[in-house]
Amino acid sequence: MSSLDDARALDAADPLAGMRERFLLPEGIIYLDGNSLGALPKATIAAQKDVVERQWGTDLIRSWNDNGWIGAPQRIGAKIATLIGAEPHEVIVTDSVSVNLFKLIIAATRLNADRSQILTEPGNFPTDLYTADGAAGLLANHIVHTEQAGDLVDALGPDTALMLLTHVHYKSGARHDMQLLTEEAHEAGALALWDLSHSVGAIPIDLGGCEVDLAVGCGYKYLNGGPGAPAFLYVREDLQDQLRSPLSGWMGHEAPFEFRDDYVPAPGISRFLCGTPPILNMLALESGVDLFADIDMDAVVAKSAALFDLFETRIEERCGDHGLELITPRDAAHRGSHISYRHPNGWPIMQALIERRVIGDFRAPDILRFGLTPLYTSFADIWQAVEILGEILDSGIWRDTRFAEKTAVT
Amino acid sequence: MSSLDDARALDAADPLAGMRERFLLPEGIIYLDGNSLGALPKATIAAQKDVVERQWGTDLIRSWNDNGWIGAPQRIGAKIATLIGAEPHEVIVTDSVSVNLFKLIIAATRLNADRSQILTEPGNFPTDLYTADGAAGLLANHIVHTEQAGDLVDALGPDTALMLLTHVHYKSGARHDMQLLTEEAHEAGALALWDLSHSVGAIPIDLGGCEVDLAVGCGYKYLNGGPGAPAFLYVREDLQDQLRSPLSGWMGHEAPFEFRDDYVPAPGISRFLCGTPPILNMLALESGVDLFADIDMDAVVAKSAALFDLFETRIEERCGDHGLELITPRDAAHRGSHISYRHPNGWPIMQALIERRVIGDFRAPDILRFGLTPLYTSFADIWQAVEILGEILDSGIWRDTRFAEKTAVT
Repeated sequence: MSSLDDARALDAADPLAGMRERFLLPEGIIYLDGNSLGALPKATIAAQKDVVERQWGTDLIRSWNDNGWIGAPQRIGAKIATLIGAEPHEVIVTDSVSVNLFKLIIAATRLNADRSQILTEPGNFPTDLYTADGAAGLLANHIVHTEQAGDLVDALGPDTALMLLTHVHYKSGARHDMQLLTEEAHEAGALALWDLSHSVGAIPIDLGGCEVDLAVGCGYKYLNGGPGAPAFLYVREDLQDQLRSPLSGWMGHEAPFEFRDDYVPAPGISRFLCGTPPILNMLALESGVDLFADIDMDAVVAKSAALFDLFETRIEERCGDHGLELITPRDAAHRGSHISYRHPNGWPIMQALIERRVIGDFRAPDILRFGLTPLYTSFADIWQAVEILGEILDSGIWRDTRFAEKTAVT
Repeated sequence: MSSLDDARALDAADPLAGMRERFLLPEGIIYLDGNSLGALPKATIAAQKDVVERQWGTDLIRSWNDNGWIGAPQRIGAKIATLIGAEPHEVIVTDSVSVNLFKLIIAATRLNADRSQILTEPGNFPTDLYTADGAAGLLANHIVHTEQAGDLVDALGPDTALMLLTHVHYKSGARHDMQLLTEEAHEAGALALWDLSHSVGAIPIDLGGCEVDLAVGCGYKYLNGGPGAPAFLYVREDLQDQLRSPLSGWMGHEAPFEFRDDYVPAPGISRFLCGTPPILNMLALESGVDLFADIDMDAVVAKSAALFDLFETRIEERCGDHGLELITPRDAAHRGSHISYRHPNGWPIMQALIERRVIGDFRAPDILRFGLTPLYTSFADIWQAVEILGEILDSGIWRDTRFAEKTAVT
């Protein structure tokens, strides 16, 4: 059996170990929920103070020009592009994942107008399913068709307008083969739209290499952009001027400050902007994304895999007889950067863990989910978290009624 | 002719004078652009520090429950409701004005499905026009029909599904008669959607008294919510469960944390939520809105009118021979809280004013616009701003080539 000292030795040899100091991590907490809300980069504290007090407070309206607010969606998009294998002018930061999905689903199905089907999988992240349904409801004769992951390739056909998939599954952590599925979608004449929310900043993504058409992703998970950070949206260069956002707000106009009555979309990716962007959240996202400028993504990917392996091995060793069922694929190439277990008492067990200051989360109906965030999760964190989980399971303390109470957000 | 001392006497007698100290206003600046970006409330500085460092940094994901993030859209909506004559459960804070317009235009035209026309006016704020066009493009057989303000009542007819108007015009400052136009719309069988962006927080609004169906409004102008603050959305109680947002993101689901595959909209106003809200901007808006809790809105309205009267009188006295043409209605009941002048050299004159540290703004093609924000604009500000404008016009310094250069944002 391994020891805490073994874990500490892994930390000592970790090329990313120095990154942990760049985050504010509260004393005594083991935070394994960075796949839901990333931790606070220390640089964000000073940057937000500057945004609020100097840029807003002192420079006021002039900041749109003088502090570069107006170009923030494109500027931060270009930084994210380097993490996902895209060109700088193929990515923009705007709105939420849900709103961006809507823009792209409508735009893509209108482009592929002789086809009636949006193909996705059951159990996809709810907002992807809900937004596809909402969009299909607006289009004449469009339906959302769901197929299990293993049947997606066979389901692609002459009626498929758009294949909409989440790269890494929010519950299971399973990763789709983006290259293969995108090729198959194209083969069938469909466009491919990937939701990168659970993969960006943690695993390798090569949108260009996979010739992906469209993508969206989340700013507040592995990118550490802060609560409700705006999302990003990718459109492959050659498609940009063929697509038209149904959300034709003024910021997507070719000349918003001419205040003309007629809408003419901006050239390129900027046409996917809509209203005035939330600048405080936008610039907090930039602080988070900037941390990746100093990082070797191969090291991130390798550490994610090593954290997973330690977690899984330790669960086997320490908690093997307590009925935890691993639902995340063991093969590093087929998973994201969180690890999930099924347990019939998942809810109270997670609440007992949180009381012991190990923060993971629960996903209905029975999933315990632990985020492995290579920038600030240590191997010692993993060893200690599993030890505490073992104590909770051994003692049965999770059966206490105080852990049964439900919260608004899980 | 009045003097600066007269203006100072008005400040001394101003019941709102104490509010000015609650804002951070940079030394030596006369800020007359609070109708575009409201000034920074001092309370927001400490509140944002707390949101970033304690709520995000220390409490992390637990803040959704423990610091009330999940209920912020409804909680802040209820506070805004008191400023617009709505019930607390009729208003929610979410997305941008543009996105909210889209939700309500689609929802309303689907409800009034046997009618094909969205009626608005030419020169309405561009995002209102652009969004209506975008929405109409998605609906079978819908068109956007524009009529000049004076012809709107006559244009309402059996084909009008929705009347979409901005309460106070962003350029001219002219205010529509909400009561009359809403009654006429209802008489014709149309729904009425009002954009309150240039009126909320500055002039009286009584959505309930006017039986308004739908409304949206901006958080970063007179509400002082900070750059890109999320917008608000109002739906009259009896309509809420009849309307369905086309943007069916997970936060509008009746049970988002059950992660079900099928979308069922939340009861009431919460169904108009979409994605995860931008919490930093959201809570900055709350700090801005909270300032209104201590304020008598009648005093705000009275001061807005008095600031306008002083500005107009002083322009007549000091700059009367320089070709400035007032385009804002003189009657306080027919205007908002900014004052606008047309001048063929509006752009360079405004740039020269800004160089002299009087900040108003320019709206194409020839409008000089000055925001009168009763919470922090003083009568002395007005007097001095007009004096500086007079000096610029007398000297002709605005003809210098350095004032001709265009900026990205005007």
